[in-house]
Amino acid sequence: MIALNEVLEKIRPVDDAAKRRARARQRQLTKPPGSLGRLEDVSVQLAGIFGTDRPLLRGKTVIIAAGDHGVVAQGISGYPREVTVQMVHNILAEGAAVSVLARSMGVDRIVVDAGVAGELPVSPGIRSLRIGRGTGDITQGPAMSRPQAERCISAGMELAIEAADSGADLIGTGDMGIGNTTPSSAIVAALTGRPPAQTTGRGTGRTPAQLAYKIEVVSKALEVNAPDPGDPLDVLAKVGGFEIGVLAGIALGGAMMRRAVVLDGFIAAAAALIACSLSPATQDYLIASHRSAEKGHRVALSRLKLRPLLDLGLRLGEGTGAVLAMPVIEGAAACLSDMATFAEAGVSGRAPENAR
Amino acid sequence: MIALNEVLEKIRPVDDAAKRRARARQRQLTKPPGSLGRLEDVSVQLAGIFGTDRPLLRGKTVIIAAGDHGVVAQGISGYPREVTVQMVHNILAEGAAVSVLARSMGVDRIVVDAGVAGELPVSPGIRSLRIGRGTGDITQGPAMSRPQAERCISAGMELAIEAADSGADLIGTGDMGIGNTTPSSAIVAALTGRPPAQTTGRGTGRTPAQLAYKIEVVSKALEVNAPDPGDPLDVLAKVGGFEIGVLAGIALGGAMMRRAVVLDGFIAAAAALIACSLSPATQDYLIASHRSAEKGHRVALSRLKLRPLLDLGLRLGEGTGAVLAMPVIEGAAACLSDMATFAEAGVSGRAPENAR
Repeated sequence: MIALNEVLEKIRPVDDAAKRRARARQRQLTKPPGSLGRLEDVSVQLAGIFGTDRPLLRGKTVIIAAGDHGVVAQGISGYPREVTVQMVHNILAEGAAVSVLARSMGVDRIVVDAGVAGELPVSPGIRSLRIGRGTGDITQGPAMSRPQAERCISAGMELAIEAADSGADLIGTGDMGIGNTTPSSAIVAALTGRPPAQTTGRGTGRTPAQLAYKIEVVSKALEVNAPDPGDPLDVLAKVGGFEIGVLAGIALGGAMMRRAVVLDGFIAAAAALIACSLSPATQDYLIASHRSAEKGHRVALSRLKLRPLLDLGLRLGEGTGAVLAMPVIEGAAACLSDMATFAEAGVSGRAPENAR
Repeated sequence: MIALNEVLEKIRPVDDAAKRRARARQRQLTKPPGSLGRLEDVSVQLAGIFGTDRPLLRGKTVIIAAGDHGVVAQGISGYPREVTVQMVHNILAEGAAVSVLARSMGVDRIVVDAGVAGELPVSPGIRSLRIGRGTGDITQGPAMSRPQAERCISAGMELAIEAADSGADLIGTGDMGIGNTTPSSAIVAALTGRPPAQTTGRGTGRTPAQLAYKIEVVSKALEVNAPDPGDPLDVLAKVGGFEIGVLAGIALGGAMMRRAVVLDGFIAAAAALIACSLSPATQDYLIASHRSAEKGHRVALSRLKLRPLLDLGLRLGEGTGAVLAMPVIEGAAACLSDMATFAEAGVSGRAPENAR
């Protein structure tokens, strides 16, 4: 097991000089300045991450971590807990949305059992961490022990390092865990200081009454556990989830390896808040793929100073948004790296004499 | 030359029964209902276009039509007119944004000289229509003759039919023409009845004074030419452009061939307004790829009842937005066609007993 501090110490700021060169290069490329909009911002970020103004993205991988949540006993999800394991099978059998999208976008897929409650077969398609068999019910006590929280993060770091060593330059985060919007809302509330009413959305629930009840559950989890907002491992242990901890570790490991970490939606953003609380430099390695319909996502992204690339009304998880954004991110890198400059192409620049 | 009426008569409404089957299928797929957001809407539209609830998208092609505009003499663009021809060379040499993005996304590219003013070499990479050598200055008289307008549309139809016959299921529209936001603003004003101030944006201009002047130019073009809003060919001839007419023809030809036509930004939307004025059924074959930063785009999309998929602050043209949206559209089709249903995957549905 890799030691947390070893990774945290190795996370370096992104390369500001490369970012400056990328900005200068963007102004020379054959297009009106700024006309590629968000693609230009992303390309500059990639330049900083990869330390070059001609970033070349090779592999794309999405890591989908699965875990179960004791708080499901409180009736906060529209689906029964068995669905987590059933959906892991479905992902492996290529029937889930993330499986279909990953294949469509040419993205490699890694499935991780961070801690589901049911049985999963031993299969080459699945990494078994099994840090627990579902978390404890956070309305009654902590989700997990502190050593378990450390193991989650460490395992996530190892997964990101392995993916990077295997050629992944874009590492997407995916999650599968019935009930996991509830611990995510609790994490975001704990780490941002915002009240649960601002960090809790409907998840798979449908009615205003279900939402009001879910806010109560999140509030109770925070009261019962009193997580220390200055100690992200404590927050993860008290009100988190196994897969959420693994995703936090992926963000940290990705940052250490100087790879771009493509966050999916709300669960990924809660995990990223934990990661950035442990290592603020990690933030610059993160790309928010899309704006989730889940309410607390906005709060988390605002704290992370991230602006999502896509806004497609997704609220599925699994890494679907991360996978969908990858071609756009690749396109951003390709434009910066491969477009001709005005000089190279013999294209005239602005005509001040013409401009009124 | 294909006759306009021949195509217009063959454009049929999309398949509503297939759309209903697609909606029903979406509800059976292994995800919370509606959780794929806009991807679900797009998938249902594709079902209607291709007449099946399991659409399989094969080829993707972007057709980039280039043309010059006499109105550039009025100083409405930040770039000199030569840039149109220079950029066509740049597109062919793989140096332009659309070239780089098309390669990155696996999209075939067809470049068409609809009517540039300068010289272009005879090259297998470029289709030479050369309907004129740049349009007339629309502040002084019509852009082109009515027969030329018909030729533009007919040529666009032929290009779309050929692309479809070559296996393109997604046909993107791209444009290259210095000054072409000005005729587009005039077209949108003429066909929607909105004042030029609401349909005119900055284009490549930078200052409020440049914008105010451009609005004057658009207003003058409409006054001088008095295009008949009930006659879209008259609007194209009086205040349009060669490449805009070709794009309108592509939309019509794509609809006739029952293919999805992926509109780029503002220029494409102006062309689509002409197409839909000629054949309202065409509308259901159109997908708006992105929301352009150009002001009149919103007006045109609202009239076309289209909601853009991406919002990346692009204002480049060339078909860049259309190409960027294609993987998302493919992903939407793949989810509808390839995801497992709850029954197939043995995944439990909602648990009403759990829901509060």
